[in-house]
Amino acid sequence: MPASSVPDIVVGRLPLYLRALTQMAASGKEITSSQELGERLGISSAQIRKDLSQFGEFGKQGTGYNISYLTDQLRRILKVDRVWDVVLVGVGDLGRAIAHYGGFVDRGYRIVAVFDNDPRKIGSQIGPFIVEDAARLEEVVRARAIAMAMLAVPREAAQAVTDRLVEAGIRAILCYAPTSIQVPRHVHVQYIDPVLHMQRMTYYLP
Amino acid sequence: MPASSVPDIVVGRLPLYLRALTQMAASGKEITSSQELGERLGISSAQIRKDLSQFGEFGKQGTGYNISYLTDQLRRILKVDRVWDVVLVGVGDLGRAIAHYGGFVDRGYRIVAVFDNDPRKIGSQIGPFIVEDAARLEEVVRARAIAMAMLAVPREAAQAVTDRLVEAGIRAILCYAPTSIQVPRHVHVQYIDPVLHMQRMTYYLP
Repeated sequence: MPASSVPDIVVGRLPLYLRALTQMAASGKEITSSQELGERLGISSAQIRKDLSQFGEFGKQGTGYNISYLTDQLRRILKVDRVWDVVLVGVGDLGRAIAHYGGFVDRGYRIVAVFDNDPRKIGSQIGPFIVEDAARLEEVVRARAIAMAMLAVPREAAQAVTDRLVEAGIRAILCYAPTSIQVPRHVHVQYIDPVLHMQRMTYYLP
Repeated sequence: MPASSVPDIVVGRLPLYLRALTQMAASGKEITSSQELGERLGISSAQIRKDLSQFGEFGKQGTGYNISYLTDQLRRILKVDRVWDVVLVGVGDLGRAIAHYGGFVDRGYRIVAVFDNDPRKIGSQIGPFIVEDAARLEEVVRARAIAMAMLAVPREAAQAVTDRLVEAGIRAILCYAPTSIQVPRHVHVQYIDPVLHMQRMTYYLP
């Protein structure tokens, strides 16, 4: 299984497949097909078959995919057959919404600590968390060997906080700040900036 | 300019270029290069040159890109040389954070109406908006000829609201609900689900 040679764009579709399969399973379905998945996702069935074939043989021609089995395999491939500890840095409006969101843990992630540098926020409760002083970021990340961070700080602070996270051992950052951050080659970054997604759509609008 | 033949993945990188160029301009820079942009974005300079060349000749070998000119061109290509009206549906924690966010209008989008179906929320103020009754969704979208929507409703409600938005004339939906929605071919959808991005990163983690 030459996983390292799989294009990142294929890797990026696997979570979509996993999400759809999980929802199918929750609604009581046991078997699906690349056609059915494709209709649900707006992706061609050929693309889905090709993507999955990069990781193994998950279904037989004509009999479809066993949803439970394929779900397990995708969870293993995406490494969410475990739960990853995540720190959240920044509790403005968006960070607050993230801290309140209950949908992470079923899908492989658990926020374990929430930080801010605003003295008015430190010590306050947000959902199940007590906001900790951002000065303690490195200490907590190191002590708990945390690999992932969500960055919901203002744009101006993003790079400085990133540098501290990376130095403390963080290897994957989900960046909500609307800016690009620089990281060493071994650190992964994904961006969530709604405007990037909207611009990708208005390109196509008349 | 055969824009329709440009791969969507290339289109998806243009907003990143525009965002970086806008920040460079804000810091007083006038000229940049594909190398400099590439370092900032973690994208190869060859890729950037190739992407931009699909849309025209924006720089000369050896002299780099005029930031102001390239910014204008990208804004035109992505159609954010105008401001698009957007409706926001759903004001839970996340919708509330979106309604409070002030960073849309400079980048081509303006939320013009905010909806919810919860009687306790209808009529309340969130940031600059008075929450309107979701029953009036179609009426407002049609009356103002709105093309774009942000969907921040619970997963269970996503498809039904989508169907109503599409019927009323919406042609682009930014979906924050953690589910796939089905739309006709002429409607564009982008998803924001933090877990999809995190799974795309943990795939690579040891």
